[in-house]
Amino acid sequence: MYNLFMKRNISEKVINRLTLYHYILQDFAEKNIEYISSKQIATLLKIDDSQVRKDLNLLNNSGKSRVGYIVDELKQSIENTLGFEKRKKAIIVGAGNLGMALAKYDNFTNYGLNIIGLFDNNPNKTGKVINNKQVLNIKKLKEFMQKNPVEIAILTVPAQNAQETAQYLASLNIKYIWNFTPKILDLDENVQVWNENLMGNFLQFTYEM
Amino acid sequence: MYNLFMKRNISEKVINRLTLYHYILQDFAEKNIEYISSKQIATLLKIDDSQVRKDLNLLNNSGKSRVGYIVDELKQSIENTLGFEKRKKAIIVGAGNLGMALAKYDNFTNYGLNIIGLFDNNPNKTGKVINNKQVLNIKKLKEFMQKNPVEIAILTVPAQNAQETAQYLASLNIKYIWNFTPKILDLDENVQVWNENLMGNFLQFTYEM
Repeated sequence: MYNLFMKRNISEKVINRLTLYHYILQDFAEKNIEYISSKQIATLLKIDDSQVRKDLNLLNNSGKSRVGYIVDELKQSIENTLGFEKRKKAIIVGAGNLGMALAKYDNFTNYGLNIIGLFDNNPNKTGKVINNKQVLNIKKLKEFMQKNPVEIAILTVPAQNAQETAQYLASLNIKYIWNFTPKILDLDENVQVWNENLMGNFLQFTYEM
Repeated sequence: MYNLFMKRNISEKVINRLTLYHYILQDFAEKNIEYISSKQIATLLKIDDSQVRKDLNLLNNSGKSRVGYIVDELKQSIENTLGFEKRKKAIIVGAGNLGMALAKYDNFTNYGLNIIGLFDNNPNKTGKVINNKQVLNIKKLKEFMQKNPVEIAILTVPAQNAQETAQYLASLNIKYIWNFTPKILDLDENVQVWNENLMGNFLQFTYEM
C-alpha cells in the first residue's frame, strides 16, 4: 500500500516538535479554547515563531483560519501526520519502577502506543496487576507472542541484565527495542534499537550551567 | 574563570552521541578491555565510523594509540569534555513510580547528577526512604532549599499538577526544570525547561513502521 507519510521527509527534530505542539493543543482543547496562533505555541516553547509556522506548513491541512489555527483541526492534523491512529503494540520487559511508571502512563494510548503485556523474571513481581495488565513471567513470553504477535519491546530491566534480555527478545523475533537501560545493546542488524539516553539528555540540558 | 569547554561549540547531537560512546567505554572498562576502535563503537551503535571519528576528534585528548583508542583515556576524555566531575545537585518532585525510578537510578551519580531530595504532596508517600533519601512533603521545600541550595528540579508529578507545581518551583528560584510530564509548562523566561518528550521519541523511533 502506498503510504502518503513515508514519502515525506519529516525529520526527527520536527516529529519531536510536533509532539510538543500536540501537548499544547491537547491542553487548549481541554480548556475549550478554539483558536491558537503560532506565536502562542512559540512563546510557550520559547522557540521562534517562524520555526513553528514552518513546521505546521508541513502538515496536510493545518486548519488555518483568519483568526489563527483551529485547535481541533490542527490537533487532528498532527495526529494524522504522525500516525497516532496507527496503533502500535508493545510489551514492557522489566517491571521495576520505571517499567511500572511506563505501564501506568495513560498518555501512551493517546499516541498510538498500546502496551499489551508486562514481563519480569522476579517471582515477587509476576502476578501483580498494573493498569489492568498482569505482570507475567518472562518464561511465558514465547507462548504469549504466539497468541499476541508483537514487534516492539520496551526494555526497563537492570543494566546488568540488558544484553542477555535483549538477545532473548531478538531470538523471539522482537524487531524494535526501546532501550531505557544505560547499556548499548549488541544485536543483529535486523533489530532496531532506540536508546532513550537519559543521561545524554541531562547533559545536553545542563551543559552550559 | 575561563572555561575551556564553554567555548567549544559541541552540539546537542554530539553530546548525546558522546554519552552513548561513554556507555560502551564503561562496559569495555568493566570487562578490562584495554583498546577500542572507532569501528567497534560505530558497529555497536549502527552508525558511521567516520561520524565516530569526527566526534572523537572534538575531544581534547582522545587517547589514540597505534592499536586503537585507550579505553580508560578515551572515557576520561569524554568525562572531562562533558563535565561529569562538575557535580550538579537536583531534587525530584513527584515520588510516583517514575520519580522513584529516577531516584533509584544510580547511574545519575556517575554522570554528575546528584539527587539531594525527593518531594511529594501525598502523605502516603512522604516519609518513605528511597535510595537513602527520604521523601519530604513539598511544603518543606522552601526550608530545605535554604539549607540545601539547588537550581535543578526533575518534575515527575501527574500531568494535571504539572503547571502549578512548576510555578511553585519557579517561585522558590528553581532555574532548571527537567520536565517528564506530557505538559508544556508556561513559565517566566528565567526558568529553563527541558521537555523529556517520551512520546516524541517513541514516534520518531516508530515513524517508519
